[in-house]
Amino acid sequence: MNNFKKINLTNEARQELHDQLGLTGAEISVNSLPAGTSIPFVHSHKQNEEIYAILEGEGSVVIDGENICIKAGDWVRISPSAKRQFFASKQSKLKYICIQVKANSLEGYTMTDAIVL
Amino acid sequence: MNNFKKINLTNEARQELHDQLGLTGAEISVNSLPAGTSIPFVHSHKQNEEIYAILEGEGSVVIDGENICIKAGDWVRISPSAKRQFFASKQSKLKYICIQVKANSLEGYTMTDAIVL
Repeated sequence: MNNFKKINLTNEARQELHDQLGLTGAEISVNSLPAGTSIPFVHSHKQNEEIYAILEGEGSVVIDGENICIKAGDWVRISPSAKRQFFASKQSKLKYICIQVKANSLEGYTMTDAIVL
Repeated sequence: MNNFKKINLTNEARQELHDQLGLTGAEISVNSLPAGTSIPFVHSHKQNEEIYAILEGEGSVVIDGENICIKAGDWVRISPSAKRQFFASKQSKLKYICIQVKANSLEGYTMTDAIVL
C-alpha cells in the first residue's frame, strides 16, 4: 500500500471513504441530508464510537431519546451503545462528516505517538 | 462517561478534541494555517494513521519528499511512517481537520458494526 492516498469529493452525494482512501483505522463518511429529511432509522453500534462534525446547516440528533440541536461548527461524540437518529431542519440541509472508530482503540497520540524529524 | 458529548468550535485557533469530547478511538484536531505559513517541522508517527480533510483554502503537503497540492474538498490518508509537512499557499489560509487513529485498529464498520433498531 502506498504511503498516502488523496481524493477530492466533488459532489453532494453520500461518500464513504474507507475503500477510496484505503483506511485501516476508521471509516469516514461525508453526508448531506436535504432540508426536512432524516436518516430513516435509529441505530447503535457494536464496537464503534462515532464522531460527527457538522459542516453546514442545522438540525437535530436524538440520542437515547434526548433531542439535541446541532449546527455548523458542532462536534458530537456518541458511544457505541447509544441509539441515535439525525434530522435536517425544515429550513436547511445538514452537511456532516461521520467518523467511525473502534472504541478504546487509541493508544498514544500527538506528542506520545509522533516522531518529530 | 455519558453516552454523548457535544461541543461547538467557535474560533480559528487550533483545537484538539480528544479531551474536550472524551474520545477513546481517535484524536482529532481542527487547524488553520495563515497564508504563507507552514507547520514548522516534518513529522511521522509510531502507530497512528492520519486522515486529513481540507475544509477551506489551498496549499500543499510534502510526503516522503513528494509535493502534493491540496485544496478544499480534498481528503488525504497518510501511513504512520510517512514523513509529512503541511503548507498554506501564499494566497490563502489552509483550514483542515486532522484525524489520528491507530493503524489497523478498525474491525467491523457500517453494516457489519451497526445495529439498526
